[in-house]
Amino acid sequence: MDNLVARARVGDARAVARLISLVEDASPLLREVMARLTPYVGRARVVGITGAPGVGKSTVTSALVGELRREGRRVGVLAVDPSSPFSGGALLGDRIRMQEHALDPEVYIRSMASRGHLGGLSWATPQAIRVLDAAGCEVILVETVGVGQSEVEIAGLADTTVVLLAPGMGDGIQAAKAGILEIGDVFVVNKADREGARKVVRDLRSMVRLAPREENRWVPPVLSTVGLRGEGLAEVVAELDAHHAWQVAHGELDRRRARRAREEVTALAVATLRERWSAPGDPVGLEKLAAEVASGVLDPYSAADSVVQETLHTPR
Amino acid sequence: MDNLVARARVGDARAVARLISLVEDASPLLREVMARLTPYVGRARVVGITGAPGVGKSTVTSALVGELRREGRRVGVLAVDPSSPFSGGALLGDRIRMQEHALDPEVYIRSMASRGHLGGLSWATPQAIRVLDAAGCEVILVETVGVGQSEVEIAGLADTTVVLLAPGMGDGIQAAKAGILEIGDVFVVNKADREGARKVVRDLRSMVRLAPREENRWVPPVLSTVGLRGEGLAEVVAELDAHHAWQVAHGELDRRRARRAREEVTALAVATLRERWSAPGDPVGLEKLAAEVASGVLDPYSAADSVVQETLHTPR
Repeated sequence: MDNLVARARVGDARAVARLISLVEDASPLLREVMARLTPYVGRARVVGITGAPGVGKSTVTSALVGELRREGRRVGVLAVDPSSPFSGGALLGDRIRMQEHALDPEVYIRSMASRGHLGGLSWATPQAIRVLDAAGCEVILVETVGVGQSEVEIAGLADTTVVLLAPGMGDGIQAAKAGILEIGDVFVVNKADREGARKVVRDLRSMVRLAPREENRWVPPVLSTVGLRGEGLAEVVAELDAHHAWQVAHGELDRRRARRAREEVTALAVATLRERWSAPGDPVGLEKLAAEVASGVLDPYSAADSVVQETLHTPR
Repeated sequence: MDNLVARARVGDARAVARLISLVEDASPLLREVMARLTPYVGRARVVGITGAPGVGKSTVTSALVGELRREGRRVGVLAVDPSSPFSGGALLGDRIRMQEHALDPEVYIRSMASRGHLGGLSWATPQAIRVLDAAGCEVILVETVGVGQSEVEIAGLADTTVVLLAPGMGDGIQAAKAGILEIGDVFVVNKADREGARKVVRDLRSMVRLAPREENRWVPPVLSTVGLRGEGLAEVVAELDAHHAWQVAHGELDRRRARRAREEVTALAVATLRERWSAPGDPVGLEKLAAEVASGVLDPYSAADSVVQETLHTPR
């Protein structure tokens, strides 16, 4: 174990991969791994990349890795698949685009599945981030499949959230109504060589300007890229750096990281309690209460109250 | 409140809609609503319908509603959108197909969003099911967006899970590897008039036969439909009834419902504890612990242990 952590710390790719596998498998060794990694984390910048299917997330992520590598930065990529039995094939296809970086020893790429985790990605992703952070990644890109609850989660996980859009994917006003304005720190309109791209950029810029913002708030830039040709990525990196500098100057980085840590600790505490409730012997009476709810003699709220009360009085 | 519950029970559509809105809004009134509905729930059969985007979930769901209505059954439909800021537009488009049933007083159709819920759909959907159940729906169809963790969730929620596939969406073996064989009680290959449909049916049938099954296990049928023309839906309804009868005969219905109740109670208990942890005054020290984790002086597991220990010793 000591050896594995030591090797991961100096950037040994196989040790890093092994530690992330422990996270995916929810290994009982994780507790010790995380304790040993703790002194070495906190340096990486976590950048979330999200957007609807088809906007070119993997292409832009890959181009962004290329740009960051040109500047000599060590990069980690977590492609997060929220456990879909259906999306496996498509995702694998997407991942192939990332292979141009497969032989670069300063790039760690990992597709994460969360199958079977209690609490899904909420506790696995932060731990995989810790591993990459301790391995010396300066920037960690977390790409989430842009359907489902993952965008909301990524906004909680990342220091900077990049929202990708593309022309022809529904108009910008629709997007704004749906809440993406609140989660994006940097907006990127990909496929900028296609018809309608300029209108998407224009609409987004007006919306960003119109959005109610407190004083001293970061105003999210709206950039254009053509991911497949690597165009516009230097500007994206520049804005990521600008957002980082702004966060440091305004104390926002600490606030986000504290929030992220709070979510991580909460998710682990919930997982612990769920395990406790499911332990043999029905320690808080969950099985019995569930049977009563199922047969219609008890309502679910009263049953939950009982679980909470029993939990609060479990002896040490 | 009494009046609202009474009206919902006799099937008043506006009262049903109002109660489901209370669920979506996580209203503090829910506790009382659920207690009052409790004597009237447990009769509906919950059928989950899931599949990858593009297989025709909404079309098949709508055709299934038509078939069930021909048999005179009262039907509820919950179209579950796991809170995506991106999918809003596309979903609304899909929903339009359901409008053929909009004027039928024996059909309740509701799109559910879970935005902002702690624990997402895990506790909102079961409660919306309770409302439709108490309103006398004989069958409740729960259609989930087939990307993300929702399929896994639906398999836990439903009495019967229908997995939809379509030709040209990736081969069946891929699907099997990805785990859908485990969650499907009935497989439906939609768009059966398209090239490749027969191969998908054939592949699925061999896989179902090859899958290791204990004695007395239900062998999932593989059916074909053309949702847009309503073809094959009578067979789907017949297999739903057959699965139901099989479950009743083998005690499986009670087992699934107990499991569903357990998940629902657990999700509510978790939500209660999360609220408690976030209460003013930092009652279990979560803020302080999160700050220590964020600054790298404490590992997340030790912090979670501390939250759990403090929780177990909160005074009554």
